[in-house]
Amino acid sequence: MAGTHAAGWLAVPPDHPLGLQTLPYGTFTTVDRPTEPRAGVAIGDCVLDLSAAMCRLLTGRAHLFSSGRLDAFLDAGDRAWDQIRSAVTKWLSSDDYREAIEDLLVPAADARMHMPFAVADYTDFYASEHHARNVGRIFRPGGEPLPRNWRHQPIGYHGRSATVVLSGTPVRRPYGPSLPPGTEAPVFAPSARLDFEAELGFVVGVETVVGEPVTVGRFTEHVFGACLVNDWSARDIQAWESMPLGPFLGKSFATTISPWVVPLAALEHARIRPPSHGTDVFSYLAEPDGWGLDIGFQVTLNGHVISRPPYATMHWSPAQMLAHLTVNGASVRTGDLYASGTVSGPQPGERGCLLELTWGGTQPLALPDGSTRTWLEDRDELVITATAAGPEGTRVGLGEARGMILPAQDPTAI
Amino acid sequence: MAGTHAAGWLAVPPDHPLGLQTLPYGTFTTVDRPTEPRAGVAIGDCVLDLSAAMCRLLTGRAHLFSSGRLDAFLDAGDRAWDQIRSAVTKWLSSDDYREAIEDLLVPAADARMHMPFAVADYTDFYASEHHARNVGRIFRPGGEPLPRNWRHQPIGYHGRSATVVLSGTPVRRPYGPSLPPGTEAPVFAPSARLDFEAELGFVVGVETVVGEPVTVGRFTEHVFGACLVNDWSARDIQAWESMPLGPFLGKSFATTISPWVVPLAALEHARIRPPSHGTDVFSYLAEPDGWGLDIGFQVTLNGHVISRPPYATMHWSPAQMLAHLTVNGASVRTGDLYASGTVSGPQPGERGCLLELTWGGTQPLALPDGSTRTWLEDRDELVITATAAGPEGTRVGLGEARGMILPAQDPTAI
Repeated sequence: MAGTHAAGWLAVPPDHPLGLQTLPYGTFTTVDRPTEPRAGVAIGDCVLDLSAAMCRLLTGRAHLFSSGRLDAFLDAGDRAWDQIRSAVTKWLSSDDYREAIEDLLVPAADARMHMPFAVADYTDFYASEHHARNVGRIFRPGGEPLPRNWRHQPIGYHGRSATVVLSGTPVRRPYGPSLPPGTEAPVFAPSARLDFEAELGFVVGVETVVGEPVTVGRFTEHVFGACLVNDWSARDIQAWESMPLGPFLGKSFATTISPWVVPLAALEHARIRPPSHGTDVFSYLAEPDGWGLDIGFQVTLNGHVISRPPYATMHWSPAQMLAHLTVNGASVRTGDLYASGTVSGPQPGERGCLLELTWGGTQPLALPDGSTRTWLEDRDELVITATAAGPEGTRVGLGEARGMILPAQDPTAI
Repeated sequence: MAGTHAAGWLAVPPDHPLGLQTLPYGTFTTVDRPTEPRAGVAIGDCVLDLSAAMCRLLTGRAHLFSSGRLDAFLDAGDRAWDQIRSAVTKWLSSDDYREAIEDLLVPAADARMHMPFAVADYTDFYASEHHARNVGRIFRPGGEPLPRNWRHQPIGYHGRSATVVLSGTPVRRPYGPSLPPGTEAPVFAPSARLDFEAELGFVVGVETVVGEPVTVGRFTEHVFGACLVNDWSARDIQAWESMPLGPFLGKSFATTISPWVVPLAALEHARIRPPSHGTDVFSYLAEPDGWGLDIGFQVTLNGHVISRPPYATMHWSPAQMLAHLTVNGASVRTGDLYASGTVSGPQPGERGCLLELTWGGTQPLALPDGSTRTWLEDRDELVITATAAGPEGTRVGLGEARGMILPAQDPTAI
């Protein structure tokens, strides 16, 4: 790539979401080296070949990126994370390093992204009060919308890590059993209520041993960063199967993540006190400072913005989620991914899934092409993007989680 | 070990559960080579060092056991599984191989067992109708005991794979939030209703890709074998947290598996038609032959037998469970573990957990030492064993899943 790219240095526009304030990590290949995954750092409209840069400029840590995946780096811990972020910042901002680095910048358009780490356990929470209340109102009209336990602890469940896929992977409409409205017996059919859920995911770097809880104060010692998550949901399959053990086939067919893992260090300026701050919670959930996050989400369906969920309204913080997950002695591992649950704000245009946006399918969304949606249709493309508040008025980009729905294929005919 | 063991060959008593009819696989070390995990096959009261035997007698497949763990072997598929089982059977039954093999037999008492494979996704089902009905009667007296969906499909959920531990690992009583009877607000405390669940687990060898369902007829192409599972459960934590997303902290602190994986080939004689056979099920769950299994479980508490659950009464077969798990397009991976759910028969002495044995804690169990139990107490040791029907009147041993309860440690004081 030598000489083909000269606009990287300090020339990234200040309003670019992938400036020096962001510097997220991912795994990429290029068309000329398709079988060599390399670790990369996004900067402006380029990707820095971090695997190669480390071999030139920080050889003592180069082994952390030799596989091209981030697993060893995640496992290396917060001192290594800080050291490498500082080094990359220096390389990309000081002219002294331009010569050593410039030929390692690849145009982002030429980089094919891959899963950046192996997902160990995948867990999903339910941390938005607006989402939980809306779901309660839709499914239990007239009843108390929030489950009794909801304000006492972050509610979560385990999901399927095998089917966490990278942004851009098409998602096939699942078959499964469900009980269509007005019928007496369940049917086995393609989901007729396919939905997305816009979420934020947190990536664990440093593992624990069984019996070692991660207190809210030790959150940053174990969690490396964040990515976007689309927790695709087949509402009809989910509704029929979930009693008494929770979601299963209605969720396990696919979960999409964004390709860039944004370090917590890049989200420091976005920190706010979450709504749970100061409320009466168990001591293991009390959070003196708070890891609420001022992140603005945007959801587009076929290119049209259908929602702008504000992460700042999430009741439980990711530090509280992890403290809860481990308070019973459960351990975490490098590559664990835990997601926030659907991000929904108080306004109708801030809801993070079609279940809420169309109020259970009763209020169709109008799209600019004249069509309407209650649930996702075949060939619909759903894109989640987000930016966080950064230093000096900048925005920290979290990339995108993109997926197109493919028509169902009858599994009994294969 | 040369010369210290001469009684192995064909001298295994015919009623020994680990005779030639069984030949399960595991991972072990010895005190003289504590850092070298080796794959082993249990035979009588010995363990054959399979990693070494392969290097001598079947070098073309020896790489499958070079790590000492079973992962590569599991991934190798049913032709390799059959070939190696045939070879080991020949080595251990023909005098022609005695000289080549004898020094590779280690007394089982000298073998320290280790986790035999890396658990990918862990899933747990709810396949016993007796268990599901008893749970329904205990929690919803007067109501319909079975959930509406139960007879239409195997109900399951995802659990935490990080905390699947080997038999013998002590299990610490978890802390967590719960709502004690008669209280208005939840408390954060050690579980006061700690329970076991006797289950059978199935180990996936050959992975699939997303969108490729494993039909009931292809069960044996993907599943290698079975082990015993104790799905430890904190009933009070579970009851409070489970609505609406299912069990979380009440299960995730520990799941114990037995160290020996018994190949499906050793369970062929135990095959029976499960109770679901011939009932009106979705076509993807119809099972012409059936993988019900005639396996007798035994549960001992501090050495006293408290239950003998019959696996033959399980409604859904493991082939049906896997067909369900994948029918929505979800993929499986090498090392996936899915468990049956609590094994309970129709009789009171056949119930596979204390929740049922003590009827929700209302009918204490009397132990020979004069004490009683409603739930597990600190220092209680729970052991699950099982044998399956084998050829010619033999029994196929499934080893044991053993665990002792350690007192709770306050996670907020660490």
